[in-house]
Amino acid sequence: MTQSPSGNIHSEQFLQHQLQEVITLLEKQELEKSLVHRDISTTDLIETVLHKQQQTRLQEKFAQLHPADIAAILESLPLDQRQIAWDAIKKDHEGQVLLEVSDAVRQTLISGMAAEELASVASQLNTDEIADIVADIPKRTMLKILRSLNSKERSDLNAILAYSENQVGSLMDFGMITIRDDLNLKAVIAYIRKLGKLPSHTDKLFVVNQYDVVLGILPLQRLLTHRPTLQVADVMVTDFVRFEVTQEAAEVARAFERYDLISAPVVDSAGKLQGRLCIDNILHFVREKSDEELLSQAGVGEEEDLFSSVWKSARNRWGWLLINIVTAFVSTRIIGLFENIILQLVALASLMPIIAAMGGNTGNQTSMLIIRSLALGQITPANVSRMIKKELTLAIINGTFIGLIIGALSLLLYQDLALSGVMATAMFINMLVAVVVGLAIPLVRHKFGRDPAVGTSVILTAITDSMGFFIFLGLASLFLIH
Amino acid sequence: MTQSPSGNIHSEQFLQHQLQEVITLLEKQELEKSLVHRDISTTDLIETVLHKQQQTRLQEKFAQLHPADIAAILESLPLDQRQIAWDAIKKDHEGQVLLEVSDAVRQTLISGMAAEELASVASQLNTDEIADIVADIPKRTMLKILRSLNSKERSDLNAILAYSENQVGSLMDFGMITIRDDLNLKAVIAYIRKLGKLPSHTDKLFVVNQYDVVLGILPLQRLLTHRPTLQVADVMVTDFVRFEVTQEAAEVARAFERYDLISAPVVDSAGKLQGRLCIDNILHFVREKSDEELLSQAGVGEEEDLFSSVWKSARNRWGWLLINIVTAFVSTRIIGLFENIILQLVALASLMPIIAAMGGNTGNQTSMLIIRSLALGQITPANVSRMIKKELTLAIINGTFIGLIIGALSLLLYQDLALSGVMATAMFINMLVAVVVGLAIPLVRHKFGRDPAVGTSVILTAITDSMGFFIFLGLASLFLIH
Repeated sequence: MTQSPSGNIHSEQFLQHQLQEVITLLEKQELEKSLVHRDISTTDLIETVLHKQQQTRLQEKFAQLHPADIAAILESLPLDQRQIAWDAIKKDHEGQVLLEVSDAVRQTLISGMAAEELASVASQLNTDEIADIVADIPKRTMLKILRSLNSKERSDLNAILAYSENQVGSLMDFGMITIRDDLNLKAVIAYIRKLGKLPSHTDKLFVVNQYDVVLGILPLQRLLTHRPTLQVADVMVTDFVRFEVTQEAAEVARAFERYDLISAPVVDSAGKLQGRLCIDNILHFVREKSDEELLSQAGVGEEEDLFSSVWKSARNRWGWLLINIVTAFVSTRIIGLFENIILQLVALASLMPIIAAMGGNTGNQTSMLIIRSLALGQITPANVSRMIKKELTLAIINGTFIGLIIGALSLLLYQDLALSGVMATAMFINMLVAVVVGLAIPLVRHKFGRDPAVGTSVILTAITDSMGFFIFLGLASLFLIH
Repeated sequence: MTQSPSGNIHSEQFLQHQLQEVITLLEKQELEKSLVHRDISTTDLIETVLHKQQQTRLQEKFAQLHPADIAAILESLPLDQRQIAWDAIKKDHEGQVLLEVSDAVRQTLISGMAAEELASVASQLNTDEIADIVADIPKRTMLKILRSLNSKERSDLNAILAYSENQVGSLMDFGMITIRDDLNLKAVIAYIRKLGKLPSHTDKLFVVNQYDVVLGILPLQRLLTHRPTLQVADVMVTDFVRFEVTQEAAEVARAFERYDLISAPVVDSAGKLQGRLCIDNILHFVREKSDEELLSQAGVGEEEDLFSSVWKSARNRWGWLLINIVTAFVSTRIIGLFENIILQLVALASLMPIIAAMGGNTGNQTSMLIIRSLALGQITPANVSRMIKKELTLAIINGTFIGLIIGALSLLLYQDLALSGVMATAMFINMLVAVVVGLAIPLVRHKFGRDPAVGTSVILTAITDSMGFFIFLGLASLFLIH
């Protein structure tokens, strides 16, 4: 952190205000440029001077802001203005800002940078921070960066990159302070004073033996509240939470929440200290995962840069739309099978979307609850059958009531008792189908080690739509058409 | 915290294993009870003894576990077993466990407790913790609890309860350590040593004047790394983040993330210290909000207890289903207007669901991205028009392509060029409608200070469905039927 956050009470208004000021500066710059261009007698020199004036004011503005605030402002600027603003950011801030912006925005910033420039920015970052942005760095530049690292840093970087983004190893940093258990607290305090500054989020020191195996933790609190003559071994906590590099990040995030942790040691399978995990990375992880989940529910591939090119956004949204064309045409073909039946009783065409839509809703309710319970680890072999029984009972109750309501409403509309009977029965059956499918998809995916959330809603809706049309029109052809 | 988390490397397997052991103990207990019942010669005494044996083993099991782990186990147990397990939890753990379980599960636990018992459990909690569970406590018991508090605690409790759950005030606690700026660091260290123990998440002390106005913060790190003879005033940070009691919790959560905070002072509008906000409450808030959002997307009212009664779950899911019956019937009536047209060209019945479904998907993509951008504060008066322009351009591109694809596919199916033309045009128009509605609903709701996420998907789908049917069948009646 090169700059501490503003002392003003933090508010969105503060940020909005800063953003407005930046935009005003940028617009003045554009305006002057265009004035200059219109006046043919002026020279390039004047243009440059004017430009420089605004640029200096922008630089001063950004120099006062926290990198995270600068990142937020950059994310809210259109591409052309973003580039000019980016040029006005002090070189020693650029690394932190690159870390803070979203992946999509980082790509736009990096694409405009020369390899040398990017390499020098990267040199301001810790190895765990370089690992966070490595996916967006071109290969050539990466080689340059690697050459500038020492062997310890290079092996740290390799260590982090060896893990998938869902493993603890990819989230750890190396800002841990380790001590031996035969020191006394006075020596520890002297050691800290010599360091001068502790890495952020240091709430505890890690006590290790000569093989780097973690023996315990020494919270700063204990260091402050115990007599300085005591030994670390007497004061340290030996009953502490530690994580393994290969553990699932989602599971570890829940442990952080459950045990109210700020930092924790990360070890390998032999118990040797590999790194440190802090709450800021966990909070970031939780937020990112929940955003991803929400966006994927709506069929958006990944977080979009608000101002990325239209083509890029289009590609990001096409995957889902194309899948839906396919599933929609399956429904179409099923309805197509029954076109003769519809010609004989056209009310069927009006009523059939209800059966499909209500089935989809019910199924999504069930699958979403199962997905949440699986994520929270609440579903176990011991209780899964009870839960299935409950959902099925619920489906029978809901199917009966919703079936009766829909039957009654269609009776009002068409005064056809047989039609209403078919309507109610089809609704009942499709709601049962929906709940069975809503239970089965996440449970089966989970059993085979897949993420139960991804794509469940698409498959489910495809099935409840086609089945809804098939059941309703099928029943109609059996009982209503002679 | 009465018990520190297990020293084992934390894993879900650990929890699953504990759960399995608890279930085994509970089942043994049931089995023995039923054996006892079958054997008529045995007396109540033997039954009681056997029961007591298992209960003791359960108690021992729970005594070794962290309250958060106990809470997770309780959430995974069916209601009858949950009650027995709850009785086996040590009295001095009950408060923490009540705090950790989900709202739905807490209600089942509290409903089985006598007023006296609940009041005594509550007396183990801090005032901010009581505030967290106050919604689930019956009024009578609450009066009992209030009487047991001293006047400071009562006013703290009232302070927290005065804020809505979306305001910072409702998330704060009172575990802050305050010091004056004219002390030297040595005196501060002596003061901390006298306290013996710091509240959890204490990473800084708050420096206040005699009116309780916050002048600065003293991070424990600075306390450790600076010379003990220095004065607090010389070492404290005066450029720090503080929050106001009435600020929006969501905004503050983003500030915690942005500035990597662990704790921060909460002040009133005059700058007077009111409480403290910690990262654990923020993480909990973020997790809860994202779960709520996901569940409400699927039309589930609130987080359900996995084993709550079927009736309770049914009620939780009915709201959305009933709303959907209404919107589905609106679509039905629109199709009903065109039944004559469908009779003349039955292919319309097969094709119309595609137009509706694709419109809904496109609109949801747009609205979800807008909702996320609004939540991140990226949309400002300065850039909103650019963003609208981009989404509309995207809609025209996507509408053209998807329209052409769908037109071509329907040409393959029905070999009717005019029908395909109507199909493509209707798709194009409905995708434009979808994007306009997908932009308008969240932006308008946001403008009027409402949560842009709630219900947007329902309203949107209702509009794209009805409009899809209307546009498609309307165009067909104009151009295809003579």
